[in-house]
Amino acid sequence: MHFMTALRAAWQRNDSLLCVGLDPDPARFPAHLAHRPDAILEFCKGIVDATADLVCCFKPQIAYFAAHRAEDQLEALIAHLHERHPGVPVVLDAKRGDIGSTAGQYAVEAFERYRADAITVSPYMGRDSVEPYFEYPDKGVILLCRTSNPGGSDLQFLDVGGGERLFERVARLVADEWNASGNCGLVVGATFPNEIARVRELVGELPLLVPGIGAQGGDVAATVGAGRSADGTGLMISSSRAILYAGGGEDYADAARRAALDTRDTINRYR
Amino acid sequence: MHFMTALRAAWQRNDSLLCVGLDPDPARFPAHLAHRPDAILEFCKGIVDATADLVCCFKPQIAYFAAHRAEDQLEALIAHLHERHPGVPVVLDAKRGDIGSTAGQYAVEAFERYRADAITVSPYMGRDSVEPYFEYPDKGVILLCRTSNPGGSDLQFLDVGGGERLFERVARLVADEWNASGNCGLVVGATFPNEIARVRELVGELPLLVPGIGAQGGDVAATVGAGRSADGTGLMISSSRAILYAGGGEDYADAARRAALDTRDTINRYR
Repeated sequence: MHFMTALRAAWQRNDSLLCVGLDPDPARFPAHLAHRPDAILEFCKGIVDATADLVCCFKPQIAYFAAHRAEDQLEALIAHLHERHPGVPVVLDAKRGDIGSTAGQYAVEAFERYRADAITVSPYMGRDSVEPYFEYPDKGVILLCRTSNPGGSDLQFLDVGGGERLFERVARLVADEWNASGNCGLVVGATFPNEIARVRELVGELPLLVPGIGAQGGDVAATVGAGRSADGTGLMISSSRAILYAGGGEDYADAARRAALDTRDTINRYR
Repeated sequence: MHFMTALRAAWQRNDSLLCVGLDPDPARFPAHLAHRPDAILEFCKGIVDATADLVCCFKPQIAYFAAHRAEDQLEALIAHLHERHPGVPVVLDAKRGDIGSTAGQYAVEAFERYRADAITVSPYMGRDSVEPYFEYPDKGVILLCRTSNPGGSDLQFLDVGGGERLFERVARLVADEWNASGNCGLVVGATFPNEIARVRELVGELPLLVPGIGAQGGDVAATVGAGRSADGTGLMISSSRAILYAGGGEDYADAARRAALDTRDTINRYR
């Protein structure tokens, strides 16, 4: 199924704009998982099984697997997601960016090896560094635009002519030129609601992946007000740590479910 | 040993500015390696053992390993390099870029898991996305500046005020602000010698990693003339495919050695 079709269906079916980010940190796992060799996989399975009916997508962050030599657990997690929760799209958060021949290898990694439905990509190297991902017509390609971290302003806020800032140029390039196949989205941090509103103005209905609520401090009401599309969807609002580590004991998955339910409903209050 | 110390020593010891890029593509391997489960490792070992005395560094491209589920072979390759060719620095070409907490995980991946001496990083997310790498004081951090691909101009060539282009701003930020610990370098493509010269002007003695000669068509004389530092070093001029696939038979490593020797000497002619 096309990523955008699956995303739209999940927005409706689960009445949710919430994306649960999977950034597994073994130092924060409950004690009963701590010493299992497959702790990362088991921890994440607990989270996804407890929240799959409350989200519009899941977003595993590949660095948290790679740092622990747990690529096999990431493969197994995504296979588990496709098997047990079909129709919930998986966005691989990898922020890759390289020349065409290398980007082709990253596309194989994300879409063939891990079977992700979408990938996050950096725009810094321009159009031909993104095109190899478009050769997978059903897959989503979500480009960094205005990121949620403080240093995001170092380059993204630069005026690139006529008062247009770099992140606005990226939004316009993606919406007007790179999105010919209708499979692009953009990353816009929840910490900057004015910029979310500006990006929404520039890109029509393009889906926006919005990290930065929860641990990073972004405001839910402002994010939803600024970023929702005309029909009240258009957003994947990502929360990771605030959900994954809502509880610290054997019932961590129940605690995660309560946190996800609460976040989903808080988001819905402002749609 | 500090990456910069090792790099300077290798420039002198091997009288070489050549960096051999390790982008292993099993479809292009000689027939005698084709069906080995460790073909990627064996192929790369053949290349590095045949060329280690001719280079200033090696640059494995992680996508070519990840696409083939060959992370273990990348680990083994870098271990082999450190053991058999100590003092030849290894630059992990990964072009990572993410918020601080995630960048910390990528730093663990590159420096603790793979034991690389340096990593390539994207500047798009700004200073706090780069800082976690600086916590490893002996390691090099090489930021994308002016990349060798055609789409590089889409963003990097934008005028960010007073005629300064985005890649010049990156060069200035890195040289003047981010390089406090003296472990930064920049990526500047060989396909744009004018921009190499401009970057050299802006950054003093900072080492430049220059991909794009060989298969990508960059001109060696122009690259060296534009990019060498005052003492005739300052460059890691990277060639991958033209060396890896110089020969297609059982003697591929000998062919790679001849191609590397020829490239090193051509580079040296213009220093």
